[in-house]
Amino acid sequence: MAARATPATDPLAAQFAAVRALSTALAAPLSDADATVQPMDDASPAKWHLAHTTWFFETFVLRDHLPGYRLHDERWPFLFNSYYEAEGARHPRGRRGMITRPSLAEVIGWREHVDAALLAALDRLPPAARDLVTLGLNHEQQHQELLQTDILALFAENPLAPAIWDAPRNRPTPVPDPIRWIEGRDGLAEIGHDGAGFAFDCEGPRHAVLLHPHALADRPVINAEWEAFIADGGYGRPELWLADGWAWVCRERIEAPLYWRRIDGKWHQFALDGLHPLRPAAPVSHISYYEADAYARWAGARLPTEAEWEVAAAGQDPASGNQLDAAGPVRAKAEGVHRVGLHQMFGDVWEWTASAYLPYPGFRPAEGAVGEYNGKFMSGQAVLRGASCATPRGHSRASYRNFFYPHQRWQFTGLRLAKDA
Amino acid sequence: MAARATPATDPLAAQFAAVRALSTALAAPLSDADATVQPMDDASPAKWHLAHTTWFFETFVLRDHLPGYRLHDERWPFLFNSYYEAEGARHPRGRRGMITRPSLAEVIGWREHVDAALLAALDRLPPAARDLVTLGLNHEQQHQELLQTDILALFAENPLAPAIWDAPRNRPTPVPDPIRWIEGRDGLAEIGHDGAGFAFDCEGPRHAVLLHPHALADRPVINAEWEAFIADGGYGRPELWLADGWAWVCRERIEAPLYWRRIDGKWHQFALDGLHPLRPAAPVSHISYYEADAYARWAGARLPTEAEWEVAAAGQDPASGNQLDAAGPVRAKAEGVHRVGLHQMFGDVWEWTASAYLPYPGFRPAEGAVGEYNGKFMSGQAVLRGASCATPRGHSRASYRNFFYPHQRWQFTGLRLAKDA
Amino acid sequence: MAARATPATDPLAAQFAAVRALSTALAAPLSDADATVQPMDDASPAKWHLAHTTWFFETFVLRDHLPGYRLHDERWPFLFNSYYEAEGARHPRGRRGMITRPSLAEVIGWREHVDAALLAALDRLPPAARDLVTLGLNHEQQHQELLQTDILALFAENPLAPAIWDAPRNRPTPVPDPIRWIEGRDGLAEIGHDGAGFAFDCEGPRHAVLLHPHALADRPVINAEWEAFIADGGYGRPELWLADGWAWVCRERIEAPLYWRRIDGKWHQFALDGLHPLRPAAPVSHISYYEADAYARWAGARLPTEAEWEVAAAGQDPASGNQLDAAGPVRAKAEGVHRVGLHQMFGDVWEWTASAYLPYPGFRPAEGAVGEYNGKFMSGQAVLRGASCATPRGHSRASYRNFFYPHQRWQFTGLRLAKDA
Amino acid sequence: MAARATPATDPLAAQFAAVRALSTALAAPLSDADATVQPMDDASPAKWHLAHTTWFFETFVLRDHLPGYRLHDERWPFLFNSYYEAEGARHPRGRRGMITRPSLAEVIGWREHVDAALLAALDRLPPAARDLVTLGLNHEQQHQELLQTDILALFAENPLAPAIWDAPRNRPTPVPDPIRWIEGRDGLAEIGHDGAGFAFDCEGPRHAVLLHPHALADRPVINAEWEAFIADGGYGRPELWLADGWAWVCRERIEAPLYWRRIDGKWHQFALDGLHPLRPAAPVSHISYYEADAYARWAGARLPTEAEWEVAAAGQDPASGNQLDAAGPVRAKAEGVHRVGLHQMFGDVWEWTASAYLPYPGFRPAEGAVGEYNGKFMSGQAVLRGASCATPRGHSRASYRNFFYPHQRWQFTGLRLAKDA
Repeated sequence: MAARATPATDPLAAQFAAVRALSTALAAPLSDADATVQPMDDASPAKWHLAHTTWFFETFVLRDHLPGYRLHDERWPFLFNSYYEAEGARHPRGRRGMITRPSLAEVIGWREHVDAALLAALDRLPPAARDLVTLGLNHEQQHQELLQTDILALFAENPLAPAIWDAPRNRPTPVPDPIRWIEGRDGLAEIGHDGAGFAFDCEGPRHAVLLHPHALADRPVINAEWEAFIADGGYGRPELWLADGWAWVCRERIEAPLYWRRIDGKWHQFALDGLHPLRPAAPVSHISYYEADAYARWAGARLPTEAEWEVAAAGQDPASGNQLDAAGPVRAKAEGVHRVGLHQMFGDVWEWTASAYLPYPGFRPAEGAVGEYNGKFMSGQAVLRGASCATPRGHSRASYRNFFYPHQRWQFTGLRLAKDA
Repeated sequence: MAARATPATDPLAAQFAAVRALSTALAAPLSDADATVQPMDDASPAKWHLAHTTWFFETFVLRDHLPGYRLHDERWPFLFNSYYEAEGARHPRGRRGMITRPSLAEVIGWREHVDAALLAALDRLPPAARDLVTLGLNHEQQHQELLQTDILALFAENPLAPAIWDAPRNRPTPVPDPIRWIEGRDGLAEIGHDGAGFAFDCEGPRHAVLLHPHALADRPVINAEWEAFIADGGYGRPELWLADGWAWVCRERIEAPLYWRRIDGKWHQFALDGLHPLRPAAPVSHISYYEADAYARWAGARLPTEAEWEVAAAGQDPASGNQLDAAGPVRAKAEGVHRVGLHQMFGDVWEWTASAYLPYPGFRPAEGAVGEYNGKFMSGQAVLRGASCATPRGHSRASYRNFFYPHQRWQFTGLRLAKDA
Repeated sequence: MAARATPATDPLAAQFAAVRALSTALAAPLSDADATVQPMDDASPAKWHLAHTTWFFETFVLRDHLPGYRLHDERWPFLFNSYYEAEGARHPRGRRGMITRPSLAEVIGWREHVDAALLAALDRLPPAARDLVTLGLNHEQQHQELLQTDILALFAENPLAPAIWDAPRNRPTPVPDPIRWIEGRDGLAEIGHDGAGFAFDCEGPRHAVLLHPHALADRPVINAEWEAFIADGGYGRPELWLADGWAWVCRERIEAPLYWRRIDGKWHQFALDGLHPLRPAAPVSHISYYEADAYARWAGARLPTEAEWEVAAAGQDPASGNQLDAAGPVRAKAEGVHRVGLHQMFGDVWEWTASAYLPYPGFRPAEGAVGEYNGKFMSGQAVLRGASCATPRGHSRASYRNFFYPHQRWQFTGLRLAKDA
Repeated sequence: MAARATPATDPLAAQFAAVRALSTALAAPLSDADATVQPMDDASPAKWHLAHTTWFFETFVLRDHLPGYRLHDERWPFLFNSYYEAEGARHPRGRRGMITRPSLAEVIGWREHVDAALLAALDRLPPAARDLVTLGLNHEQQHQELLQTDILALFAENPLAPAIWDAPRNRPTPVPDPIRWIEGRDGLAEIGHDGAGFAFDCEGPRHAVLLHPHALADRPVINAEWEAFIADGGYGRPELWLADGWAWVCRERIEAPLYWRRIDGKWHQFALDGLHPLRPAAPVSHISYYEADAYARWAGARLPTEAEWEVAAAGQDPASGNQLDAAGPVRAKAEGVHRVGLHQMFGDVWEWTASAYLPYPGFRPAEGAVGEYNGKFMSGQAVLRGASCATPRGHSRASYRNFFYPHQRWQFTGLRLAKDA
């Protein structure tokens, strides 16, 4: 009788169990309604994230690699495919919030069904299918971060400003020293994933790049500095902005980062643990590329390129810093009052870079439907590097390329300055 | 010691208890998510209906007339005011579906709190406040109908076509005889509410009208007849349509009544008890004014005026016909295979009239915030008369004026033909 | 040898020559560019008006009734049909301003060609065709008014505020006395065209109406009164507005009638003779139905019904008052400082009524393509009565029904108050 | 007495006279209306181009550097500033077509006035002002190309398909041989303007780049090849498209390059000399970045980077090829049936590259208002290289960086394939 893979005997089973459990834990404080409503086209309901990640395993692993597997419900793939054209027609993205049924409980039931089926089958799966499991887990970690930011976007729509997590005790933190410039390496270097361990297709191939003399700030820009930018009229001076950014500021009447609210003359920030006075020492988050670029111009600096960032980060531990360890409140935190070298490269906030999200030399998308994972998004977006307070620890890498459109800011997005040396 | 009003001692208390209980019963099959999502700007979440009707009593009766009453939650009026400018700022209509908290259960708790407070206070209330209770009950009955049609609009967005009610057994019904023309009264007549019993302000004052010779069809148009209209190319012939209607047909690609779906070449209709083959003998429902007008032109007839309709209905029992008696599936039903006189004037479907929704001669809105109830909507809309299968029995009158924009069709809207005699 | 119809021998020929000449005269101060650009979807280029009215004669008279007639250019009907579905596909309304060729001169050439052909054929035309000529002339007069208002809309877009006509000497006019109320007739009366002379199909059939006791103001509302409405916060008080109107005010940020501009704290008005200080004694013009309705509510009055208006106007000379006699500057003018009875019923400004534009009892559209002239617009619009300073004298009648959507205000639209007596 | 600069004595004067004359010649076949209408937000009226380029000289040279110079008309800068925030408020871009006055003739009068003033002052101008003259001439050459493409966009809106130029005799051209791959240089290289002669600020600083092994196609993709792409379902296969591109194809219902029209089953192309059967041997033009990218994927290739392109073009004569020498019909032409090396790098069509339009390392915008010339557009756009049939000969360089948004295609845009070697 075949032994079944268990977390004790198969590290992939252990990883699978842990990642899947974290998703459910992140949704634990949500009501059925909280998990169902879609706050905007860019954001998906929490229930959808829980279902879509399950669809990924059921479709690309169980359906494709487990002979005789029957779909839990044949009608659900239409609802929970995201954008895979090769998988056929699907529910329109902007209508995901209309799906009140299946309920959150039914989706969690689906998760349990698929989890059991996959764990039962894990040790019989061919290596290609096990690679898809690993891809699915990394995919699910991405959706864990989105689940948190999408729920934040939803709750921010509610005038009652509900909190799903208790706020941790707020120890006042001293404002860190001004930024210091750390010279980067120049000349020829290599970036991109080197082949050991998992990486998304867009992180390779590893290739040589030419770096020009430059320096990076030793920490991200913090809220206190952003308040100075606002106080100096930063949102009202077109000469600081890209033309597209200025049009966006005027059209959307942007006056501060997303989730900042001025109450009785003082800035507050809304988060999943409620509305709190702005913490001056914490890295600024929820800014668009346009805002990051304008701030850098105001500061007489620029954004780093992704190659500059990656080369600088190569020696750092990507699992360090303020990242997600367990379900609970997340927030970019003050750090580094006394510090040496580059701080907070991973964790706290994703850092906008000056680089457009484009294929590396020699890039080839993966084969099959999962080949739609990254490559088809390579236009119009900018690369972000690092990790945020909402990124599951262990998910990121120095070579990791996150990407969003320049106006988007509902993620934990911030910036680190760079300059020519 | 003051006696408390009870249903046994105060007919208003009995009516209050019954109406309030029906709303809750209508929402009973709904999950928290079902009750929270907003399918389109025109439609509100079920939870919002339950809360808004409660807000009405709490604001205009308890707050305004019960000294010392404290609001259940001071933050909720902002969320659940609909359109009363005099009551201050409010949550935007199109964002009602963002409010996942308070939950459905909390809103039902609010209902219970307000119900108890109002029943406890009822016999101490001044007559003006008791009139507001009556207004509030009629207001709530309107929202009972909307609650059903808005939930239908939501479930129609779900590709799984969920049913919240079991379908009743479907007895095949013979298609009724062709319509017969019933001559109407002409010359001077009176319409409008005559002052006895409750009526909305827009139903008065009662006034003389002049009727021209005409006849009304003895029953509404049925689905079988509408299929003939479609088969004759009705949706593709501009000469049958008002210019605004033709633009609407082209822009929205309208090809059939709302909720009709063609499956394997056969028309089906989606309803709260699921998707079923179209019932040819039932009155057509979920059509816009534009469609009603185009059908009438195709049929060589016209829509009745609201005066023609009201004079014809004056002798009928407005509490008769297929109207809502209890929570459960609702549907326009076949009737009148053998019939005499005007059939189905009340119940089944609201009947579009040719009349614009305008003030009667001498109309004055009610005083105070409730003066915004009707008068300010008197532009751009058309009058519908009668009642539908989703109208709570007892709510309608011969003088009742319902009104919607000409493109709207998510209500149970149908038509009865008229012609010059 | 057949005699040719001449203005001396055939009154229709004389009328034809005069009307056609006036159109050309109205366009005389326009450059090719002035005549080509379309300022908004609602307004058409002057060249288009000149061409479309010509197309009407060429199509419905020459093509349909003159055997052997060859179209001046076979490609032009596609460009210059307005909305006649029966005449086939046509250039989209919103793109009329793209047609730089044919040029203004070529269109005038077409006019001359068609004029000559029609005059040559006039005495051979059957009576039905001669009726179409009369219809075409009335049609052209409508376009003469539109040509002026559309050019005004265009020039208002130009920051240089160009004038196409010299401003006449501006004699200061005393502000007229306050309005006096003139009681109207009540009881049964008749309205609608009575069959003698030309009228549009929508003016009939003549039919009985029932009038309730009422009074009409003896003159239109004037600019000085409108300034008082503004000063009293009229555009900022939702209780004065219909719900649709208030949404329009907020969305479009309406603060004054169209073409009013505040310069150095003083109101000015832009017109075809340039930008001038507002004339307080002149009737207010370029207001929407929503504004007219809000003003009436502010003034404790209401708008008249079209029946009240028509019965009151029945004894007046529709060719009197400030109407268009020849090409030149047009403007609503002060009048009636000392006055008796109803003033300015015809001329100066079209007067919004409370009546929706709906068919009269027994209305039947004309046969054929010209049956699309009026009937298909009978939804969503309100009736205006009288005539304006831009209406060609001789065009209007007591029974004349003009109609526009409630938000539209680029015509010379004003109001006269009414009240229940 | 001061000598006046003349073309005979001052090469800049000669260049000024020639460039200015060409603009006027390009507009010579246009009527006042042709020159005034704006076909879409992206395109400007020809009159606006003639005026804006004049505004540039009047503002930045005469006003800023010629003491005592009085503006020709003080109201015109508001109309003809394009996007220079530092120059204050301006007419909205999308309303440029509303300006029927000043007329084309008046704008040409302005040109003559400014030309005379500038030539009279030229030899007294300080070097910085002479540099601005040179910048202004390059600026005007860019607008010469836009003037042609914008007029083409306008005439394409006219169902009559008017031609402003006579079509040259159409000699049938053999379809050239299939593309051959030319290996590019790899390793370190330099790109960017080297400091000799005029260049825009965005072309510098010159800097080292690292090229990976690659090859370029020896000629652009031609119409015959594009027809094969269409025939193979290219516009209907999502796997060939970037996600943004596929959304654009679906939303805009794109089925062929802009200005291609299928008539009786055969492809035709509309151009300034009218509508003609598609020329199979000519380079494809009027395609978007999305189309170029999809074609390359279909062909198993990719787009070149701008660095690959520039290094390859370095040895070529940028004044060679099919570029604009004089006013007249322009069109991408067949060439290179027998060819050696890279063909048509300059002229015929601008070539989309894979590179986002971003600043070069060390880029600094020019000082002053002209610093808004390029830098603020560095987001969301892609770089095109080379020159087109509508580019004035002498305007382009190997280092020249043209840029448009990925969906735009009203320029003469085509592509050259590249591949990894």
